[in-house]
Amino acid sequence: MAIKFELIKESSECNARLGKLYTPHGVIETPIFMPVGTKATVKTMTPEEVEKLGAQIILANTYHLYLKPGHKLVEEAGGLHKFMNWNKPILTDSGGFQVFSLGKLRKITEEGVEFRSHIDGSKHMLTPEKSIEIQNSLGSDIMMAFDECAPYPSTWEYIKQSMERTSRWAKRCKEYHQDWDRQGIFGIVQGGMYKDLREESVKAITDLDFPGYAIGGLSVGEPLDLMCEILDFTTPMLPKDKPRYLMGVGTPDYLFESVIRGVDMADCVLPTRIARNGTTLTSHGKLVIRNAKYAKDFGPLDPECDCYTCRNYSRAYIRHLFNVNEILGSRLATIHNLYFLIKLMENIREAIKEDRLLEYREEFYKKFGYIN
Amino acid sequence: MAIKFELIKESSECNARLGKLYTPHGVIETPIFMPVGTKATVKTMTPEEVEKLGAQIILANTYHLYLKPGHKLVEEAGGLHKFMNWNKPILTDSGGFQVFSLGKLRKITEEGVEFRSHIDGSKHMLTPEKSIEIQNSLGSDIMMAFDECAPYPSTWEYIKQSMERTSRWAKRCKEYHQDWDRQGIFGIVQGGMYKDLREESVKAITDLDFPGYAIGGLSVGEPLDLMCEILDFTTPMLPKDKPRYLMGVGTPDYLFESVIRGVDMADCVLPTRIARNGTTLTSHGKLVIRNAKYAKDFGPLDPECDCYTCRNYSRAYIRHLFNVNEILGSRLATIHNLYFLIKLMENIREAIKEDRLLEYREEFYKKFGYIN
Ligand SMILES: [Zn+2]
Ligand SMILES: [Zn+2]
Repeated sequence: MAIKFELIKESSECNARLGKLYTPHGVIETPIFMPVGTKATVKTMTPEEVEKLGAQIILANTYHLYLKPGHKLVEEAGGLHKFMNWNKPILTDSGGFQVFSLGKLRKITEEGVEFRSHIDGSKHMLTPEKSIEIQNSLGSDIMMAFDECAPYPSTWEYIKQSMERTSRWAKRCKEYHQDWDRQGIFGIVQGGMYKDLREESVKAITDLDFPGYAIGGLSVGEPLDLMCEILDFTTPMLPKDKPRYLMGVGTPDYLFESVIRGVDMADCVLPTRIARNGTTLTSHGKLVIRNAKYAKDFGPLDPECDCYTCRNYSRAYIRHLFNVNEILGSRLATIHNLYFLIKLMENIREAIKEDRLLEYREEFYKKFGYIN
Repeated sequence: MAIKFELIKESSECNARLGKLYTPHGVIETPIFMPVGTKATVKTMTPEEVEKLGAQIILANTYHLYLKPGHKLVEEAGGLHKFMNWNKPILTDSGGFQVFSLGKLRKITEEGVEFRSHIDGSKHMLTPEKSIEIQNSLGSDIMMAFDECAPYPSTWEYIKQSMERTSRWAKRCKEYHQDWDRQGIFGIVQGGMYKDLREESVKAITDLDFPGYAIGGLSVGEPLDLMCEILDFTTPMLPKDKPRYLMGVGTPDYLFESVIRGVDMADCVLPTRIARNGTTLTSHGKLVIRNAKYAKDFGPLDPECDCYTCRNYSRAYIRHLFNVNEILGSRLATIHNLYFLIKLMENIREAIKEDRLLEYREEFYKKFGYIN
C-alpha cells in the first residue's frame, strides 16, 4: 500500500501534532525518533533488540549500501528488509548528504554529483535517477528525493541556485520512480536560513505532491534559535495531511523544539555514536560512564529508566566493560540511549494527547539540566 | 550446597561417562563445554544470550578480574554472578596460567609468583592463599587450585619439581578455603608428558580429596596423539565419583578424544576468538566468512544448524557485516560457534547414553573433514 498519513490531533498549545503514518511494512505513530542503521545494521544491535526497544522504523544509508555490499546484491538478497532481517518500515536517505560531504572528492553538475568513493577512490556518479534506482533495489518503504543539503553558512546566491536545482532533481526523482504502492518518496524542502528561499522551495516541492516532506538544510551547525525560527516559518506552509521529517535531530532539546514546531519524524546517529564512547543520556543529563566516580556505583545508569540495561546492570559493571574494551559495554549503552529517546518520544506523544507538552518540556529540561 | 558429582552412566565402548554436577547455582549435565567469560563477560554476548544457547556454566579469569575491576570491587557488587548478571554456575581459574605466561615479568618461589601487571607494570604477588582469597571474593561455584602449568616441552627434572610444588600449593589452597558449601575447589593434576610424574601427581592431589579434579599441563602445544596417550594413562587413576576437567580444549576433535578418555568438562576461548575474526565452525568444517565466494551466498552459515544466526541471517549478510567492521558480525559468529560446540556436546551426551559415541565420532569426523 502507498504511504499515507493520518493526522490524529493538533495540539492546542503549539504546532505539535499526533499522527499515524501507514507504510507497506506497518504503521508508525508520530512524532517518532528513528534509529539509524547506516550499513544495514543499527550498530551493535540485532533487529529484534531494536524492535523490543519500541522502534517503529529505522533509517539506512543509500551511499554506504551502494558502495558495500552494493544495491544489486541487496536486491538479489530479496531487499534490505530481508537482507538485514528487519520487517518493520525502513527509510533510506538519498545518498546526497554523504556525497556532498566528500568535499574535494565530488563535483556537482545539473546532471548530478560525480564523486570518488571514500573507501577506494573509485569514481561514481549519483543522479536523481540513480539515487532512486538504488533505493528501489534496497526496497525501503520511504525513499528520499536526491537533494543538496547546503553547508551552513552559505550565501543567499548559493542557496538559491542549490535550492532550485534540488527542486528540479525532486521532479526527476518523482518521474523516475514507478511503484508507489511498494515505496514512497519524500520531497525535501531546502532554502537554508533564508525565509524567501524556504517559501519558494516549499512551493516548488509541494507542487510535486509527495506523500511526505523533509525539511532539509537544518541541524547543520546553526544555533538552536535559528533552527527554531526557520521551522516556525517553514512548517506552517507545509500541507497538514503529510508527514514532516527533520533530518539529523537527536538530542532531547532539538527533538522537543522541533516537535513543538510541527515536526513528525526525526533521526540522528548521535545516541548510538556517543553510546559507543560510553556517553549516556539520562533523565538527569548526560552521564560519562568512564568517570572514576562511577567505579563503585552499583546503581543503574538511570534510576528512572526501565530498559534492559538499567534493569540488569550497574554503572560499575558498565564502566568496567568500557575500561576493558568489551563490546557488551557499547551494546548496553546503545540499548539505553536508543530506549531513552524512543521513550522520550512516547512521552511526548502522550503529552500532546493530553495538551501538556509545554509543561512536560519544562519539567524535562529542568531535570535534564538544560535550564535551572 | 557443596559441589557434588553424580556418575550417571559409563560407556560400554570407551571411558566416556555421563554425569551430573551439582553446584550452588544449579546442576550441570556432563560432559560439558564451558564458554569463557574472561573479564566478566562472554565476549560480545549478554548472559541471557549465553543461557539461551544452552550454556550451563561459564568460566571467568581470576588474573584479569583481579587487575580490573579488582576482586574487592566485585565482592562489593555482591559477587561475580550479580556483577555480570549471570545466575548459573561459574568456574574461575586460579590465575596461575596467566601469571606463568608472563615470562620475564614473573618470578616463581615456594611462596608463590611475583609478577608485574601486563597493563601497567605494577608489582603483585600471587600465592595459593591469595588466589583463593580472590576467588572467594568473586564467589565462583568452582574455584581452581593455584598450580603451575609447565610449558611443553619441559625436562623431567623441571616437571618433577614443578609438579611437587603444585601439590604443596594445592594443600595450602585447601587449608586456606573455608566455606565449602558456597564454593568448591578442584585440584589440578600435573606431571607433563611423564607417566611416572602423572602417577605421583594423581596420588598427591587425590589424597587431598577435592570435589573435582582438573588434568593440567595438556593442550599446551603437544600433538593430539600425545595428549590422548597421557589422558589414557591418567584419567583411569582418578576417582570415578569426581568430575574431571580438561583445560583449554575447544576444537571438535579435541573434545571428542578427551570425552572418549573420560573427561567431563572442557573450556576454550577458541570458538569465541575465531568468531570475532569471522571464522566459523560448521558441520562441514571451518568456514571463513570473509571469502569472496560467500558474497552472494544467501544460505545460512551451516544449513544443519538451528541457532539464532543460522535461522535469520545469510552468509552474504554476515560477510557484509565483517567487511564493514560491524559489531553484529562478531555477535552472530560468536552465537553460532558457541552453539555449535554446546550442541556438539549435547549430541555427544546423547550418543554416550545410546552407546554409539564412537560411531558418532566417525560420522562427525567424516563430515567435518578430519578424515576422508
Ligand atoms: Zn536505561
Ligand atoms: Zn548456527
